[in-house]
Amino acid sequence: MNAYDELLERLKDIDLVNQIGGLLGWDQEVLMPPKAAKLRAEQLSWISRTGHEKLTDSRIGELLEILEKDNNLDEIQRGNVRLAKDSYNKATKLPTDFVAEMAMHKSKSQISWTEARAKNDFSIFRNDLAKMVEMSRKKADYLGFQEVRYDALLDLYESGLTVSKVDPLFAGLRENVAPLVKKVIENGKKPEMSWVHENNWSKEGQEKLSQSISESIGFDFEAGRRDASTHPFCGGPNPDDVRWTTRYDESDPFGSLYGSLHETGHGLYEQGRPRNLDFQPAGSANGLGVHESQSRLWENQVGRSKEFCEWALPTWKKYFPEQMKNVSADELWRSVNFVEPSLIRVEADEATYNLHIMIRYEIEKKLIAGEIEVDDLPDVWDDMYEEYLGIRAPNRTLGVLQDIHWSFGAFGYFPTYTLGNLYSAQLLTAARKDLPNHDEDIRTGNFTPLLEWMRRKVHSRGSIITPAELVEEATGRPPSPNDFIEYLKQKVERLYDLAA
Amino acid sequence: MNAYDELLERLKDIDLVNQIGGLLGWDQEVLMPPKAAKLRAEQLSWISRTGHEKLTDSRIGELLEILEKDNNLDEIQRGNVRLAKDSYNKATKLPTDFVAEMAMHKSKSQISWTEARAKNDFSIFRNDLAKMVEMSRKKADYLGFQEVRYDALLDLYESGLTVSKVDPLFAGLRENVAPLVKKVIENGKKPEMSWVHENNWSKEGQEKLSQSISESIGFDFEAGRRDASTHPFCGGPNPDDVRWTTRYDESDPFGSLYGSLHETGHGLYEQGRPRNLDFQPAGSANGLGVHESQSRLWENQVGRSKEFCEWALPTWKKYFPEQMKNVSADELWRSVNFVEPSLIRVEADEATYNLHIMIRYEIEKKLIAGEIEVDDLPDVWDDMYEEYLGIRAPNRTLGVLQDIHWSFGAFGYFPTYTLGNLYSAQLLTAARKDLPNHDEDIRTGNFTPLLEWMRRKVHSRGSIITPAELVEEATGRPPSPNDFIEYLKQKVERLYDLAA
Repeated sequence: MNAYDELLERLKDIDLVNQIGGLLGWDQEVLMPPKAAKLRAEQLSWISRTGHEKLTDSRIGELLEILEKDNNLDEIQRGNVRLAKDSYNKATKLPTDFVAEMAMHKSKSQISWTEARAKNDFSIFRNDLAKMVEMSRKKADYLGFQEVRYDALLDLYESGLTVSKVDPLFAGLRENVAPLVKKVIENGKKPEMSWVHENNWSKEGQEKLSQSISESIGFDFEAGRRDASTHPFCGGPNPDDVRWTTRYDESDPFGSLYGSLHETGHGLYEQGRPRNLDFQPAGSANGLGVHESQSRLWENQVGRSKEFCEWALPTWKKYFPEQMKNVSADELWRSVNFVEPSLIRVEADEATYNLHIMIRYEIEKKLIAGEIEVDDLPDVWDDMYEEYLGIRAPNRTLGVLQDIHWSFGAFGYFPTYTLGNLYSAQLLTAARKDLPNHDEDIRTGNFTPLLEWMRRKVHSRGSIITPAELVEEATGRPPSPNDFIEYLKQKVERLYDLAA
Repeated sequence: MNAYDELLERLKDIDLVNQIGGLLGWDQEVLMPPKAAKLRAEQLSWISRTGHEKLTDSRIGELLEILEKDNNLDEIQRGNVRLAKDSYNKATKLPTDFVAEMAMHKSKSQISWTEARAKNDFSIFRNDLAKMVEMSRKKADYLGFQEVRYDALLDLYESGLTVSKVDPLFAGLRENVAPLVKKVIENGKKPEMSWVHENNWSKEGQEKLSQSISESIGFDFEAGRRDASTHPFCGGPNPDDVRWTTRYDESDPFGSLYGSLHETGHGLYEQGRPRNLDFQPAGSANGLGVHESQSRLWENQVGRSKEFCEWALPTWKKYFPEQMKNVSADELWRSVNFVEPSLIRVEADEATYNLHIMIRYEIEKKLIAGEIEVDDLPDVWDDMYEEYLGIRAPNRTLGVLQDIHWSFGAFGYFPTYTLGNLYSAQLLTAARKDLPNHDEDIRTGNFTPLLEWMRRKVHSRGSIITPAELVEEATGRPPSPNDFIEYLKQKVERLYDLAA
């Protein structure tokens, strides 16, 4: 066997471990009985240890050394070698025992977060989080960094990302977004939303609405599932088995539907992966920023457009005939775009969303650097919300306990949400040039042209090239925040008649 | 580390692989999306290959050789060494590639069985079954046998079982059971069951009834789940995560409830395993015969007793008030015990059940020996039903396609069902001596004394001693069919007033 085929065989073995881990993780979040937590942690630790041992096998190092000198590799082969090398480097820096301990602690810590959130009691989560922070700092030290420790963690989710790159980007966004939000608040005009709050929205109706709209957009339910979980996510083992979740609130139907659109976007990306590259790193999704661009595309750029609301209105009326009786497409559109500083990130509007991210980014930066500690978090959180958004959480559940991410040590993950917003705007701007009937297509529920464009330009390209290269290849320009800022300006001006 | 601790560490590693496989298998049967089948087969094959490689590691052979000479081992340690030795011997006889191929084929073949059954078309399953039979013969040849090839497969499910032992046992049973069934048919008396067939039994009501009764008996739903699947089973990864299923027919409520009682019995056994022996073979359930004794106990010996029907009647009335309005406990009891030759094994009454098993046993014996082939099966099946039970299936779904077992190559498994019936009668006869209030306890829904007796005498003993030793230890006598025959005689005579 030649070196490349031998490498692929080993990568397939590793991918199967990860697929199985994907199922175990999904099951843990969605339907595992509570007493199973302790032994599930043992299983996940075993999966993690096994994957790590296989990835750090010195034979992989030898094969990569041979292949890096090979000038006859094609684009896909080069992609696989580059990605395998990156994983190998990251993995060999982490001791096997450390990886297993971290995996076991992740399971434990997710359980205590769930309980703490349900009981609105940070102290239940406090010790597990403190250990997770300590382990994350240690992880960053193992991985190494050039400037600050947090860089090592940012790089895990978007290759090459550093504080020195994110800081100016976020400052630029804040410069443009903060005045917009201020204008809206000063303007004081609020959409008529009594129809939302004065009605009850049955879970059953919301489930049918989510299912119907996800199917219409193109999610294949023969190759995936929709379920409920505390924290909505998209997971599962592979492109034939993509499982996303949402959550239901009978006093507000938007959370579940737009959560479903978001996870459907992630799911469509997974289902669109290049199937000739099964089990190969080049066939996987291209990092978290691009992933988030796909979820944000369907949730916001499409799902909160006026045309989409016009198309979706009859479906709303089908499942909620009484509640929607007197609601027009224009009212629906204004309601799903209501801009108002709020406490919950996943339910934030497009204008304030990135402010939520910036709060988490600033906190993580200080926490990983050791400038603040876990016991400071609840109040630091509330203080920053007051500073950035002018509001304060009435309890921990709506404050520092709202996100699952820290419970599994995903420090450095949040900034990719904002990258996703930027990429999604840039991709749709480019797609519009190829699809002159885009608005009319959305108005008539013809989602195929846009999905096909994304399949061709994004999904089918896997991770063959880097995220930044992919965005440039698809749009003709390197990643930039301009399209997003422009999109947001136009939208807010249209919604609130703020035009110059 | 001493040899015993080193062995335990390796056995824990293997047990974790099996736990994970247990979850993957459950998921495949219960909720996996259809297109995921192909890659799930790859995952299960990986699990199977990994477990096999770990079990056949020559270091385990070395450790076992050391430990077999060690005279200072206690009862539990001896049990672990004996069980590990048995698994090691069986596994080292099967080539790794063969095991992986078989695992992959199991997944594939279960899918085609499901489709064939749904579409009532044996041809959809035919080729996969033919390959499975061929692989099973090959497996028996790898494992080796003394007298006939089928012995090697019987031994997989109940250690030491052979055709020469089963043949006379089954002949003895048939001698006693066949005349009983004949008497009932000649007697011609049938219970009044129009209340069953003239009503509709909502799935929702059946779910609540199953859940409520399973909880009352003692199944811990914080450490397990109830779901629906085509073929009811009890699975899941470990004693903290025991997952059983049932299926619903709105024209007949008995199938789901008594299926639930059956699987609850399996589940109680799993939840009662000795937790100080987690990850050790001696801590696992003691083979399929004993497992089936626990499911049959709650399904039949308890669940179809008059006292149980008296206790359960108010619960029935709670969930089906209209349907049960005029039904007495006596009518319920007679209805759930209606003896009549029928086509479906899992819904057969206690008197005819073992005839279903004998048909499968006779077919398997000939099939593995090569005396009949797969294409003969549909008609051989129907002919034997005509011979043994006097009835013929109107289609393949109710005939040769009714059981899942052959689709995963479980030839040799069916006879353990009959062993389970014998053990359950023998165990309850012994328990009654210690529990003089047994009938009154059941009548008042006090299931704890019987469950505690089983926990103490059966569940907590794991696999420390062999199944035959366990039955003898618990009952004071070696396994025998006498208690079962006596139980059945008394019951049928009471039901049909056939007393001498």
